[in-house]
This record gives sequence, C-alpha cells and structure tokens, in this order.
Amino acid sequence: MIARLAVCGVGLIGGSFALALKRHGAVREVLGIDRDPEVLVRAQALRIIDGVLLDAPPQGAPLDVVFLAAPVAQTRSILSQLLPWIGPHTSITDAGSTKQEVLDAAREVLGARIGQFVPGHPLSGRERHGPDAAQADLFCGRKVVLTPFPGQIAAHLDRVRALWEACGAEVVLLDAARHDEALAAVSHLPHLLAYALVAHVAGAVNGAENMSLAGGGFRDVTRIAASSPEMWRDIALANRKNISRSVDAFVAELKKFQSALKSGEAAALEKIFATAKSRRDNWCAKGGSTSSE
Amino acid sequence: MIARLAVCGVGLIGGSFALALKRHGAVREVLGIDRDPEVLVRAQALRIIDGVLLDAPPQGAPLDVVFLAAPVAQTRSILSQLLPWIGPHTSITDAGSTKQEVLDAAREVLGARIGQFVPGHPLSGRERHGPDAAQADLFCGRKVVLTPFPGQIAAHLDRVRALWEACGAEVVLLDAARHDEALAAVSHLPHLLAYALVAHVAGAVNGAENMSLAGGGFRDVTRIAASSPEMWRDIALANRKNISRSVDAFVAELKKFQSALKSGEAAALEKIFATAKSRRDNWCAKGGSTSSE
Repeated sequence: MIARLAVCGVGLIGGSFALALKRHGAVREVLGIDRDPEVLVRAQALRIIDGVLLDAPPQGAPLDVVFLAAPVAQTRSILSQLLPWIGPHTSITDAGSTKQEVLDAAREVLGARIGQFVPGHPLSGRERHGPDAAQADLFCGRKVVLTPFPGQIAAHLDRVRALWEACGAEVVLLDAARHDEALAAVSHLPHLLAYALVAHVAGAVNGAENMSLAGGGFRDVTRIAASSPEMWRDIALANRKNISRSVDAFVAELKKFQSALKSGEAAALEKIFATAKSRRDNWCAKGGSTSSE
Repeated sequence: MIARLAVCGVGLIGGSFALALKRHGAVREVLGIDRDPEVLVRAQALRIIDGVLLDAPPQGAPLDVVFLAAPVAQTRSILSQLLPWIGPHTSITDAGSTKQEVLDAAREVLGARIGQFVPGHPLSGRERHGPDAAQADLFCGRKVVLTPFPGQIAAHLDRVRALWEACGAEVVLLDAARHDEALAAVSHLPHLLAYALVAHVAGAVNGAENMSLAGGGFRDVTRIAASSPEMWRDIALANRKNISRSVDAFVAELKKFQSALKSGEAAALEKIFATAKSRRDNWCAKGGSTSSE
C-alpha cells in the first residue's frame, strides 16, 4: 500500500494503472499531471485521479511513486518538472515502449537518484487512448517487463513489481537492450508494416478501388495503424537502430518468399507458410494470443 | 431458383454457398464433390449437400450450376472431371482468389463452352476451413467480385449474379487483371507479410523469448498466417507477378520509413503515420471493416 502516486500522462495506460491500484486498495491518493488540462478535468470526473499535481510540493510531502505514462520523448522534460516532488524514498517508474533511451534520459535528469528508477513496459497497448479508455482490469493477466540495471536499488524494483502484481499483471525481468531488440521485432516493426501496408494499398493509382476491395485480412493486419502517430513517431525514433535492423531482416525474409514465388518453388513456398502457421498456432496454444499489444 | 447445383470443394466457401442458397430456397438439390471422402460424409451429415456427384451423370440430367470452391491450382483437373456433367445450359462459376489464371485454365478445358463460365471471388475468407466452418450467412453484406470477359454469355453472368444476391452478397463487376492486381495489394501481400513476420520473430536467435513478449499487435497482424498453407501456396503462385510487384512497392514504402527513421526526421515520420491512420480511419468509417477476408 502506498500513500501518494503521481501519474504523468493520464491516458489509457496511466489511467488504467491508477484505477487498478485503487480497486485493489493499493494506493490512497492519485495525483495527475498531463499537458492537456481537459484530460485532467475528465480524469478527475472519472475518479481516476483525486487531484492535480501542483507546481511545488506541499511541505514535507514527497511522492511515494511517480508513474510516467506519456510519450517516451517527454521523459526528460517531465522528470525535470517533477524533481521537486522526488524525495529519497520516491520510486520512479514508467510505461514506455522503449527502455534504453528512457533509462539514458532518466539517468541524465535524476543523477544520483537513478537507483530509484525502475524502467517498465506493460505489454497492454491498445489503439484507443485518453482517460475514457482506461479500465481497472487492463493489465489483468498481461505481461509487464521491468528492466533492472546496475545501480538500481532493489527495494524500488520490489515496490514497483508489487504494484504491477496488485494490478494483476505478470512481471517479467529483462535486460533493457534485449527488451528493445525483442520489442522492435514483435511490436515496433508490426506497426511500421501496418502503416506501410495502408500507404501501399491506399496510396496506389487505384487506391480508392483497392480500399473498396479490402476485407478482414487487411483490417486485421492494419488495425494497429489506427494507433497514435505521435506516440509511434517517438517509439520509432527512440528505438530506431533495432527497428532498422528488424526492417532489414524482415525485408530479407520477404525477398526469400518473393524469390521462391518467382521461380515457382511450390513445395518451398508451402513449407515456409506451413512453418509460420505452426509457429503461430503453437504460440496461440500457449496462450500467446490472450495478451494485448 | 435452380434445380441442381454441384459444389466442388465442400469447405468453408463451398459449404456456405450451398447453405445460403438452400436457406433462401434458391436451389432444389446440391451435389458435392471433394477429394476427401470424409468431407463429403460430414457435409451430407450437416445437410450441406444432398448427395455426392457420381462419375457419370444420370441420363438427361446435366447440372444447372457448377461452383468450384477448391484451391485454384485444381481448376483444370476438376473441370475436366466435370465435363460430362456440363450441358449447353450449365453455368460454371468459381470462388478462386485469383482470376486470370483460373480463366485461362477454364478456357483450356471448356473450349467452346467458355462463354458459360463466370469467374467469381467472394471476399469472405476465414482462417477456418472445412464443412463445419460453413455458415448460411457467411456472404451476407459481403462483396463478391465477378469478372466478365469478352465472349461471356450474359445470361450466365446474370444467373450467377442472382445466386450471389440470393446469398445476401453485394456483387461487384471488375476486370480480371484489375482484380488480380488489387487483390495482390489488399489480400495476397498481407498474407505474405503475416507469414514473413512470424518467420522473422520466431525464427530469430531469441525467437522463443521474442514470441513470449508478443502481444495483441503481433496477434492481429499475423492472424491470417493461420490460413491454409496449401491454399496460399496456390494463390501466391497463380498471382505471382502481381504479388511480386506488390512486394517491391511495399518494400519501397518500408525503406522510405526506414530512411526517415535513420535520419531522425520526426515530422516526416509523424506525417507518414498520420496519413496512414486517417486513410484507414476513413475506410473503417465507410464500413470497410465490416467485410471479412
């Protein structure tokens, strides 16, 4: 149980974290901070937050936990703004989709307090956003990656981990570099593919006719192209090296298919498809398909 | 109302066509043909078909309509087998995902009867298959593309069109070449992307760990990788030229993103993402997302 939590960016993720902790009695008071004042008004009306974080803290009242759930490029500026609220016992954590750049930014702003930082990433994105999208059970049964690093204070890791577990999440510990590499492949690249597919289909000479013939396959493959362009701009830039490597590896994979196609290698093609199908079927059978984003 | 329909390939599409026509009283008798005898037994138990097509037709009883719903590579052999059943008034139609190669195959086998052929493509695929997946309302509100060609007899086009409309489908007429080009972009390429993404993520050195971190985005993008490898092998080969062109155009689109990413062009990236998002949002608003496949 913690007394005071600040949520920075009271949207889908920030709002759901607050609602989940409240539902499980794990927090007494939630204060919000958001660049959009209307979001704060709405979040308070929805009882996601109990109040708004003031410019300066009331005397002797540092925060217990700070939760950053804003686009990753804002990490530096939000942390700078929050510094007066951060005491020696404040745990700072985030929900950013990339971890190395966030850790670098936090190190720069937090200095000696970097040991209090617990980089995190709940694998629970949705294409919906804003406080109205928040829901107390968003993280139930979902994975949350925390990325420990040398110098991190174990008590802060434990505390953040306990909060996520109170939300019903399954916590996975992973090296930040490995996280960024894996997420480039399983999440960031798929977003680029979705955006690129829409551009390819709709941007063609016969784009309008193409779109009129698009169906369920197109809809599913491109669903994540409905995500926030700003958020994905930030993620793409923050993880550009891994994503760029993933693009290269993916294109190589696609060219392999293309080459089998061009030379009419029926058996090779069917084997490629069957292998992919069975890998995905296995993943689904292990419950992979129940987690979101 | 037609008297006798033969359905060749009594799976999701063939079975659903039969069930829909039966429900709307548009056919008196449905005969099935399938390379798998168990499918025929099951389809008869499910009352999808009323009997099995014999090797030779009973005297004076040609079929009214032949509906091919087997993998496109089998068009030639199935039509040859059916020739004795095809009279001067029999309409022949199909449900193949590619149209030019099917038309060529039909022309070869049907010869002077090619005017009775009505190439078709219901945009209603599912990753499920087999007679148990068939449902009478599968085509309700879905598009069906028919591709007229010089020499086609109008009465056959009208009849096939009326059958699809009896199934609740919306019929769209389109040139076969244009159909194949559009479908390469909106359907065949997305399938390749799905297969390639699974191969990229699961086939990597850390493939198992990657897969354990994959979530809803990965799930949706790769859903169609659960489709039948044999069917997609045939479609890919039948439409290889268009698909290969689509792969090239798509890779060019992806490389554009990669280049903006590498040089850190934040505004350009956001614009690319926002344009794709708004195109897809518009498509959804026009009801695009309600159709399947």
